Amino acid sequence: MTQTTTITRSDCEKLDQQDPLAALREEFDLPAGVIYLDGNSLGARPKAALQRAQDVITREWGTDLIKSWNTAGWFDMPSTLGNQLAPLIGAEVNEVVVTDTTSVNLFKAIAAALQIQATDSKRKTIITERSNFPTDIYMAEGITRWLDRGYQIQLIDSPDELPQVINDSTALVMLTHVNYRTGYLHDMAAVTALAHQHGALILWDLAHSAGAVPVYLNAANADFAVGCTYKYLNGGPGSPAFIWVPARHQEAFHHPLSGWWGHASPFAMNPGFTPTPGIRRALCGTQPITSLAMVACGLDTFGKTDMQAIRKKSLALTDMFIALVEARCASHPLELVTPRQHQQRGSQASFKHPHAYAVIQALIKRGVIGDYREPAIMRFGFTPLYTSFTDVWDAAEGLRDILDSKDYDANAERNAVT
Amino acid sequence: MTQTTTITRSDCEKLDQQDPLAALREEFDLPAGVIYLDGNSLGARPKAALQRAQDVITREWGTDLIKSWNTAGWFDMPSTLGNQLAPLIGAEVNEVVVTDTTSVNLFKAIAAALQIQATDSKRKTIITERSNFPTDIYMAEGITRWLDRGYQIQLIDSPDELPQVINDSTALVMLTHVNYRTGYLHDMAAVTALAHQHGALILWDLAHSAGAVPVYLNAANADFAVGCTYKYLNGGPGSPAFIWVPARHQEAFHHPLSGWWGHASPFAMNPGFTPTPGIRRALCGTQPITSLAMVACGLDTFGKTDMQAIRKKSLALTDMFIALVEARCASHPLELVTPRQHQQRGSQASFKHPHAYAVIQALIKRGVIGDYREPAIMRFGFTPLYTSFTDVWDAAEGLRDILDSKDYDANAERNAVT
Repeated sequence: MTQTTTITRSDCEKLDQQDPLAALREEFDLPAGVIYLDGNSLGARPKAALQRAQDVITREWGTDLIKSWNTAGWFDMPSTLGNQLAPLIGAEVNEVVVTDTTSVNLFKAIAAALQIQATDSKRKTIITERSNFPTDIYMAEGITRWLDRGYQIQLIDSPDELPQVINDSTALVMLTHVNYRTGYLHDMAAVTALAHQHGALILWDLAHSAGAVPVYLNAANADFAVGCTYKYLNGGPGSPAFIWVPARHQEAFHHPLSGWWGHASPFAMNPGFTPTPGIRRALCGTQPITSLAMVACGLDTFGKTDMQAIRKKSLALTDMFIALVEARCASHPLELVTPRQHQQRGSQASFKHPHAYAVIQALIKRGVIGDYREPAIMRFGFTPLYTSFTDVWDAAEGLRDILDSKDYDANAERNAVT
Repeated sequence: MTQTTTITRSDCEKLDQQDPLAALREEFDLPAGVIYLDGNSLGARPKAALQRAQDVITREWGTDLIKSWNTAGWFDMPSTLGNQLAPLIGAEVNEVVVTDTTSVNLFKAIAAALQIQATDSKRKTIITERSNFPTDIYMAEGITRWLDRGYQIQLIDSPDELPQVINDSTALVMLTHVNYRTGYLHDMAAVTALAHQHGALILWDLAHSAGAVPVYLNAANADFAVGCTYKYLNGGPGSPAFIWVPARHQEAFHHPLSGWWGHASPFAMNPGFTPTPGIRRALCGTQPITSLAMVACGLDTFGKTDMQAIRKKSLALTDMFIALVEARCASHPLELVTPRQHQQRGSQASFKHPHAYAVIQALIKRGVIGDYREPAIMRFGFTPLYTSFTDVWDAAEGLRDILDSKDYDANAERNAVT
């Protein structure tokens, strides 16, 4: 923490003037006086989302009623949105559906992977990280406990262990591409190749990657992926999640959540289940249309730029935030837990501090919204679509002032749910 | 089909004038010139739903952002709505959550029931009706195939078979309370008692009961129930479903969809799953808040009446529709498939006709919206909150005129998705 920096707020203003993405901020409704660095928890609201929801509610639901399942494309919406999302994650058309929750989609993918691997009875291990988002581990726990066929979950403490632990007893490697706490970004192609070398399948959770960093699922030859639309994709609170199954795995993709939306003839009302060909076999039941429809508004803003431009700005934003905080808060016990190397960094910067929770609360009071994650981590997400370089300056400056003036309640106890 | 009736449209107008529920129609936005008899597929839009969604989108999401998980009650919403819904189905506080889809909730309940029954290794049968809504059967298929422990699904062709087939090898009886096609209403208390007599558990699907007929889950001593909020409860297109687990079963309620929302400490981010005490262990992942929030608007309208008043009007509406159709369309090959006995009838009336699909299309063209269900069934749902007696007259009269004048395309092929 001995870095210095000569960056000034006026330098940031200049960067904003030169920023090719600056105009995209106008696509979003952000409250005045707020610097929002929590788009990795809940993305900001695209202005268009209100009109879209009003249209679903008044015209499609209110006036056209059940006809809208056909005429407004409700029934096809998981596929339509999946196809719109596909290019952001390096997927092809008809490989993604937007549906259900990330947890439920994890369940489908883990179940399908174990079934594919069941031909090799020695493959009994699911490898994941202890630091993975807990629901990923919980869903694997749920499946393995219920199947009761000797599956084990092996938790590793560092990505460096992967070459040692993946072997011919590995059924599935299940990793979150960008760690929710630290922002550590896995090398998807290298880890996928490593898994395949040993005959393991790999499932990537893209909750903190989709819309945040370029993702090339097919180029990496990945096996399955799931992800979230309400973070960097700005789909709205709790908007449905997505699941990707590449064409080569679709025929073998079987999961126990065999509901009518995944049936080959959902309206023939036959009592026996026959999965539909293609990605729609990953569907299960009727989807929450109003929440689902707004996902398009978030995706539409990505159509006005590309993931390369987003990545370039994302790294510039996180580089600057790290440099400013380390230089200007150098006298305080802050520890960067996000990798410095670009190729290992998602679109966030996280710092440890003994009073992390209290400091985050003080920042929020001043309109700088980051969040807290156990243990003792202040997490700041950077969304290039609506975050400016002056936002970064002002956030770092707010943090410096709070720390310098000790303007936080060192006894604050965590009681929030987000 | 030799009934006659002396009812006139003016009688219906008088009934509307005397109808204590007539004013509730004003709570709903229904398109002009439409008689909507498809509330059993997608309930009409409560006017309040638009304002509620706008508030979620602009204020809760747009302005308050992640704070809304706490301040707007987003995280608690499955419970808040569950408690609001509970009295409509004879449930207690903290026994219902509104979450996920009916299919996913069926999966949880079937899995939990099988686990409870697993202490008795001879209980290997799930009994249900061949005519049950297919997704119920598909979800049971998904679980049993995947557990691969010798569970069998036994399909019966008539409720009369239940006393013969339920025995001490029955693990679970899984029935839809009101049949989606015929409107047949099971005697919940009697069938539950029959199941319990043989040590079986019972799971009721209330998709066509909740908000349609009085339901007394606790009084019937039922074991589990799931249901839908987008039909008679008017929650909006694809609005999240519900699951009921009575207090006495909650501690033993375990299911494999063990996501973080069902964890005892969801924000401690521990890598091991510990289910939360109480009904919230039936939750899994993050819910679609905008769609979920509007469920309250549908439920609010029920607060202005009660299920007894709704049932009284429902039976009067279906009685009248049956009487009018059978008297005025007596020369046509219509066959009532809905029970005539009140205690066996839900809130719908279904008729078979050789050209059922074509006739329904012709009715829809005239603004009378019912729907078609395989095989050859015209289905009409009656929602006492917004359906009037003159609606019933006009619908029956439209049907008569179409049949008398053969104003339908007898070659029409079904191609719709609803």
